[in-house]
Amino acid sequence: MKQKKYALIIVDMQKDFVLPGAPVCVAGAYETIPKIREALDLFREIRWPVFHVFREYRADGSDIENIRLKGFLEEERYAVPGTEGCEIVDELKPVAGEYRIVKNRFSAFMNTEVDFMLRRLDVRHIVVCGTQYPNCIRTTVFDGVSFGYHVTLLTDATSAQTPEIAEANKQDIANIGVECITLDEFKAKIA
Amino acid sequence: MKQKKYALIIVDMQKDFVLPGAPVCVAGAYETIPKIREALDLFREIRWPVFHVFREYRADGSDIENIRLKGFLEEERYAVPGTEGCEIVDELKPVAGEYRIVKNRFSAFMNTEVDFMLRRLDVRHIVVCGTQYPNCIRTTVFDGVSFGYHVTLLTDATSAQTPEIAEANKQDIANIGVECITLDEFKAKIA
Repeated sequence: MKQKKYALIIVDMQKDFVLPGAPVCVAGAYETIPKIREALDLFREIRWPVFHVFREYRADGSDIENIRLKGFLEEERYAVPGTEGCEIVDELKPVAGEYRIVKNRFSAFMNTEVDFMLRRLDVRHIVVCGTQYPNCIRTTVFDGVSFGYHVTLLTDATSAQTPEIAEANKQDIANIGVECITLDEFKAKIA
Repeated sequence: MKQKKYALIIVDMQKDFVLPGAPVCVAGAYETIPKIREALDLFREIRWPVFHVFREYRADGSDIENIRLKGFLEEERYAVPGTEGCEIVDELKPVAGEYRIVKNRFSAFMNTEVDFMLRRLDVRHIVVCGTQYPNCIRTTVFDGVSFGYHVTLLTDATSAQTPEIAEANKQDIANIGVECITLDEFKAKIA
């Protein structure tokens, strides 16, 4: 095992986004749970830092993106603290020693303490997975690169509404030089 | 009453920072409670937005400023969610419809949703009070100015460790063109 330290960033695996039939379910998200759990178990075993990054919106819509406001207020609310749907799916529940990070926008870095904490932990390399590819995953990856991190995207632990969207985003992300590999490939790399 | 809308930003009036004998008590903070409460009552009456902005630090110190880390871990912890000291003082407890904003650094704007929410509310003018002058108040005022807000500082509802520190900071803040007035003067202005 190399001594290089990685941090796992799991994005938006909340019931409202993941469970089939949920208000804003991402079609591909549910089936990635086992692979994300496998990544989580790996990081737990090695004792590398884990960040569970997830959305919260106030029920009155006062902090949601403008483009989402109307649907949120007039159709269905989601990611509201205190509701069941806001919770991380049972299989991926954070445990003591892991970090819960509330985010209010797409990127895990925007207006959060993630960058501060990664610096404190002396982590230079982040491993990103979760949902969904074109929005929160992609902005997190690009911000991670912008802040100077080495970024690995776990392709089989990341999801989109369709395989085509996932593939197109993966290509774009790989094109800027981000490592896009499967969890097995990541395991082989660190072995 | 003019139709111009103001938002009140109350900074760090948490028990750990305010109550005499608390771990990191700001000497002048306790005695400002009645004046801040008076400002709060005014905003409640007019139904202008209120933001209660306060600190939270994880108990393991993983998100605190480097310069505070050693004291936090080796002497006494403060502003840790779930502890009594982290709570806003009883007299200023937020009520329904007011916004609770967790901040991790000095400024109410740094890595928070405050700017997003003020834009949504169409607020162009913020009124700042709380504790303490040289740190969280000052950075909040300067960031407010930087983000393009008109800023009013309530001098008799803002505190420091000593009157001299308060006065020196007030002078510097006034010198950049920020309105530094008492609550009575603010009331007269909006009357």
